Amino acid sequence: MKVAILGAGNVALATAYYLASTGHSVQLWSPFPEERAALSGGLLTAEGVLSGTADIVVAAQAESCVADAGLIVIAAPAFGHEPLMAAIAPHVTAAQTVLIHPVTGLSSLLLSRLMAERGVAPTIVDASTSLFTTRRITANSVRILKVKDVIEIAAIPAARGPQALALLEGLFGKRFRLEPNALTVSLNNHNPVYHVPPLLCNLSRAELQEDWMIWKGITPGVARLVKLVDDERLAVVRRYGTKEVSVADYFRQAHGAIGADLPAIFLSVAEKLKGPIGPQSFEHRFMTEDVPYALVFFLSLGEAAGIDMPITRNFIELTSALYERDFMAEGHTLDRLGLGGLTPDAIVARSMSGFSAPLAAE
Amino acid sequence: MKVAILGAGNVALATAYYLASTGHSVQLWSPFPEERAALSGGLLTAEGVLSGTADIVVAAQAESCVADAGLIVIAAPAFGHEPLMAAIAPHVTAAQTVLIHPVTGLSSLLLSRLMAERGVAPTIVDASTSLFTTRRITANSVRILKVKDVIEIAAIPAARGPQALALLEGLFGKRFRLEPNALTVSLNNHNPVYHVPPLLCNLSRAELQEDWMIWKGITPGVARLVKLVDDERLAVVRRYGTKEVSVADYFRQAHGAIGADLPAIFLSVAEKLKGPIGPQSFEHRFMTEDVPYALVFFLSLGEAAGIDMPITRNFIELTSALYERDFMAEGHTLDRLGLGGLTPDAIVARSMSGFSAPLAAE
Repeated sequence: MKVAILGAGNVALATAYYLASTGHSVQLWSPFPEERAALSGGLLTAEGVLSGTADIVVAAQAESCVADAGLIVIAAPAFGHEPLMAAIAPHVTAAQTVLIHPVTGLSSLLLSRLMAERGVAPTIVDASTSLFTTRRITANSVRILKVKDVIEIAAIPAARGPQALALLEGLFGKRFRLEPNALTVSLNNHNPVYHVPPLLCNLSRAELQEDWMIWKGITPGVARLVKLVDDERLAVVRRYGTKEVSVADYFRQAHGAIGADLPAIFLSVAEKLKGPIGPQSFEHRFMTEDVPYALVFFLSLGEAAGIDMPITRNFIELTSALYERDFMAEGHTLDRLGLGGLTPDAIVARSMSGFSAPLAAE
Repeated sequence: MKVAILGAGNVALATAYYLASTGHSVQLWSPFPEERAALSGGLLTAEGVLSGTADIVVAAQAESCVADAGLIVIAAPAFGHEPLMAAIAPHVTAAQTVLIHPVTGLSSLLLSRLMAERGVAPTIVDASTSLFTTRRITANSVRILKVKDVIEIAAIPAARGPQALALLEGLFGKRFRLEPNALTVSLNNHNPVYHVPPLLCNLSRAELQEDWMIWKGITPGVARLVKLVDDERLAVVRRYGTKEVSVADYFRQAHGAIGADLPAIFLSVAEKLKGPIGPQSFEHRFMTEDVPYALVFFLSLGEAAGIDMPITRNFIELTSALYERDFMAEGHTLDRLGLGGLTPDAIVARSMSGFSAPLAAE
């Protein structure tokens, strides 16, 4: 199958390597000419749990990259989603499937809306996290640390979920759990919960570029802030009727952590994982991605449902001032996603239907 | 002169030693029987820039401690002020002078109000900071690191300032600058500004009991939060017509720091002071004293003047949640100080007159 990969970071290269090495025809496009140039040889190298070399084609334009692809993968940090979506939207057809790998704060709806403006409804698939835990080594080589056992996906429109699941299983194996709607997938994002408070409470370590382990930096007081943010997220999860997985349960399930409370759980994770080291810079996606695209998204959902989220709001306001940015304005509010003024039920429904024509009419 | 010292901490013992060693009759009382017992020998030892031994009397009751004293010194952290004031208020006479050493968030007004209920108006003197930089070594010995050149004082009622200044100069030398009102002294408190954000941004260091230097932990991002809190404080200072000293100028003046901005200034302070090490516990007065008694006081003054202080409010709300306390409710709001509903001008006037009968009637 021809697969189009949009992006040239960790996840993009690992996905491209995996698919090319398993016999698929991979085309990759980055909006940055220097990234395309660095990859122009088309040879990718992987080491780690998967290793070897594989050939890909570096496309000169987004249009040729996506043409005739059976799967289109958007693999970029959240702040890269909108420009990539704008680049491909004119060229995607109703027969194609676009995987947002991973989604953040229902970014898939931005693509859905762009496509609706053209009157075209492709299948859009949200992935909760990346299938590969990976680090880019050079412009064309990656270290793949882990292929995750199971990640959550959902389709827009939701009725096409089984068909999307079959497509992904054919390419990657039985590594997906299909959720009833895309909102579940974006709400079940624990990153901001264990990224934002720990980085704020270890900010001087990051700025001094200390070798510090994020899990050890989540001391009991820091863990209390993690729990406060998570409790507010869980209140939103409950109100929108989606699946409730606390950050404690996430670490128990995903990393086999043990312990009765978060301080014990993070100690257990520290002993198990031995890494990675925490952020070593002030400008870091733990803040610049997770605050606007996840915390702001949670808060906006909470506001629409009348849920008070003072701690989440404090973190957004304080980090906005700290980073001299208006994360609320740049982030995924409901207005930004085209969900402004809707009731919680209507928001859930829209996350299932997207902005395309109603399913009945298709 | 007989001097009464209330309290048995760093500042209390250093003050008691200094006055006893210069020939005054010092009586000391602590509300805690174990502190009185530990001091019962009455022999204080000092080392550092002042050294020697001196005799004091440990009073069994607050009443006998303050009786006939020419100066009464309240020397305790902010959270100890109210109980000490309640203990002495029934016994203080109109002829006596009470020094709050140091004051926090106009805590002097709490004493003024207690005295007004008795119809008695002593002279109350607010000191901006402690005259001695000191550490207690044992229950009856202290290390005196520095006797400050100049600290700010103000009197309630303000008209008695010159007389209070003369009294203190007679006891301690020319080490005081008389300010026009007590509000100036309490607003010119830089502690919360360089305590609260740095501790939050180094919280895991404190909890892990690392040997860290507070000044080095104020990296550029942390310094940005320091400046944001200070800017809000300075807006209050300007509105209440009191003397404007930024935290940068404070470090330039008090510690000879150099540098164009706060990151440079804190680097300079780190090189100059070589210490002290930062907090090594979660429960620390950098938070538990400075948030309720200083940040809450600033915010409450700001609210009365229509000044927006979002960053100060964020820190109060976030630390309240973190410490599982309602710092706003326990702290020095204007309501708590008996200033609720007053205009800024009336607040300044009240900080000058206190709650006693008007000066004209005395």
